[in-house]
Amino acid sequence: MKFKTIAVFFTSLLACSISIAQTNMPLEDFKPSSTNQSGKQFPQVNSERCVRTSISAPEAKKVQLDIGGVKYDLVKDDKGVWTGESAPQDEGFHYYQLNIDGVSVPDPGTKYFYGAGRWGSGIEIPASDQGFYALENVPHGMVSENIYFSKITNSFRRCFVYTPAGYEKETKARYPVLYLQHGSFEDETGWSAQGKANLILDNLIAAKKAVPMMIVMDNGYAYKPQSGEPVARPASVFEEVMINEIIPMIDAKFRTIADREHRAIAGLSMGANQTMRIIMNNLDKFASYGGFSGTSNYPSSDPIDPATFLDGKFNDGVAFNKQIKVFWLGLGTKEPNPFPGSVGAFRKMLEKQGIKYVFYESLGTAHEWLTWRRDLNEFAPQLFK
Amino acid sequence: MKFKTIAVFFTSLLACSISIAQTNMPLEDFKPSSTNQSGKQFPQVNSERCVRTSISAPEAKKVQLDIGGVKYDLVKDDKGVWTGESAPQDEGFHYYQLNIDGVSVPDPGTKYFYGAGRWGSGIEIPASDQGFYALENVPHGMVSENIYFSKITNSFRRCFVYTPAGYEKETKARYPVLYLQHGSFEDETGWSAQGKANLILDNLIAAKKAVPMMIVMDNGYAYKPQSGEPVARPASVFEEVMINEIIPMIDAKFRTIADREHRAIAGLSMGANQTMRIIMNNLDKFASYGGFSGTSNYPSSDPIDPATFLDGKFNDGVAFNKQIKVFWLGLGTKEPNPFPGSVGAFRKMLEKQGIKYVFYESLGTAHEWLTWRRDLNEFAPQLFK
Repeated sequence: MKFKTIAVFFTSLLACSISIAQTNMPLEDFKPSSTNQSGKQFPQVNSERCVRTSISAPEAKKVQLDIGGVKYDLVKDDKGVWTGESAPQDEGFHYYQLNIDGVSVPDPGTKYFYGAGRWGSGIEIPASDQGFYALENVPHGMVSENIYFSKITNSFRRCFVYTPAGYEKETKARYPVLYLQHGSFEDETGWSAQGKANLILDNLIAAKKAVPMMIVMDNGYAYKPQSGEPVARPASVFEEVMINEIIPMIDAKFRTIADREHRAIAGLSMGANQTMRIIMNNLDKFASYGGFSGTSNYPSSDPIDPATFLDGKFNDGVAFNKQIKVFWLGLGTKEPNPFPGSVGAFRKMLEKQGIKYVFYESLGTAHEWLTWRRDLNEFAPQLFK
Repeated sequence: MKFKTIAVFFTSLLACSISIAQTNMPLEDFKPSSTNQSGKQFPQVNSERCVRTSISAPEAKKVQLDIGGVKYDLVKDDKGVWTGESAPQDEGFHYYQLNIDGVSVPDPGTKYFYGAGRWGSGIEIPASDQGFYALENVPHGMVSENIYFSKITNSFRRCFVYTPAGYEKETKARYPVLYLQHGSFEDETGWSAQGKANLILDNLIAAKKAVPMMIVMDNGYAYKPQSGEPVARPASVFEEVMINEIIPMIDAKFRTIADREHRAIAGLSMGANQTMRIIMNNLDKFASYGGFSGTSNYPSSDPIDPATFLDGKFNDGVAFNKQIKVFWLGLGTKEPNPFPGSVGAFRKMLEKQGIKYVFYESLGTAHEWLTWRRDLNEFAPQLFK
């Protein structure tokens, strides 16, 4: 088994990499990526899911494509244009960058996304199931930027709010709300830009697979104003901001159905951890939960003692099942440690407690956006029914 | 006079540039730019309005800061970090980039903006009057992304729509609309990202200097679907899209006051040219116009014959003055050719025809966003009164 794994790994690594072996030529059906800037020919993706990038840099000594944790050397032609390919990538969206003589910079060919702690390049590898997040000729909701002043953090913050098609015209209709959070080193832009949450909901609602709902996407980083010595890891006040500032603002500004049955909360990775704590501490506010690639026992894979975990919130399975309408977990089959172990330990605890939940596996995807797009596509139809 | 001009030019160019003359040290009160990515220390701006950038590139041979049409050499320290400064820049927002061994790339320190035909770095030089576009603790409107399918272009398009504070709550109120267009090599993101149109209106409305209004910001590039041989410069159908698709969509979706007295149109540079044609061809749709750094005789500075210019639309000054509520032109005092000559020739024609108009000069700014922010700040209060 071990040998087989290594063999697969090497085949994969070499498949498109002409810089490693000239005998392994990539399939020449490359097309510009859908995340390219208007009119830009590179980067490109072929049907083997290899990424080809190209940049004119006559004076550079070394140019690399840095994607999926691997740096691929590009090759310079006689005009000074560097070109090269990555190994096959997983389907879906990936962050990446170029490295020019040792400096990591965004690829001037792509649009930019906030993730991995910086605004940088992203690339879309067409997925076999990409229709569910495609821009289709269906009624489209709107994504609105909402700026607000947070007294708790003494700072301006913002959230993006998805309102479904029809919200503007049907001025008496009220809507349920999903609060949807990003992961670590991401921000409030992630779910609409990389996550395509608006397009996923547009398509689900048009197909009558999900009820019309609002989605609120805020920033999971929130800290009290610092006084005195700066602290390396200040305590998060995001839960306080969510409960005392964001929800009241959304309920005051928008036509929501402002009760727990019509409020759900979900998040990915760090956001899954945060939002699980928030719902379990505020069961009067939310009735449904989605944890995408994360649970609040992260990063531990140890067995969970429900008597003590999250102050015993999972200790009474019968009461839990009565209170929670939807408890939903998702995970990609290619996620790295510690996610499978951590989520697995959490599921064992749920099962031991007799807690009803849904578990969804995203086939062939890792700790990345296609996993989370699929999660949202599976989770949203369960809500508010 | 000529000598004096040259002397000023050289002083200006050398003021911050330690790479040119070590004796001209910049004033060491640099602060990170407001357009930096969260947590990034560079680029910085000092009180002389010089830009300092810094990047670790131990293996690079040459790194330059490319801003305002000038490339400034950075200097490498013994740790491989390249640092250097530009000459003083005009107040306001500027696009710029880094050049690493001959390759132009975005600066990894900044957020990215669409302008000059690409997503790239931008920097904000604090302006003496920056309060009018500052993020203040006043009621904030929302900026919404609206996706629509255009039959005329057979493509998905989008516009950003500013709705003023209170729009969501006051579900019976109806609002006037300003259609506001970007310039060449920019897009529908420009007016809210670089232009700060939403913050300018938030502040004007809070101070009761402008009436609550909506702003619609669409993309000025629109072409019929191409068939047969590709054409280098296809004819624009933007006017058709505006009149037959955008306005009906906005009036159907939002609570607008859908008559000409409550509809204005304005644009900057290319957008000023486009929107002047649109209003003059559609006086049943619009009653007010703003032309920021542009007019429809661009790029000509020749005297205009009102009998033939734009099909004689300016020929009858008396009728014009009855039909148009606000006709407004703005220009920066440092704008390059052909703008002063072209706008000047247009103004002469207006005056010859006895046409009432407002002319505003932005002091010390060129063909850049601070000119256009100021224009909007002066223009919006004139509307819908």
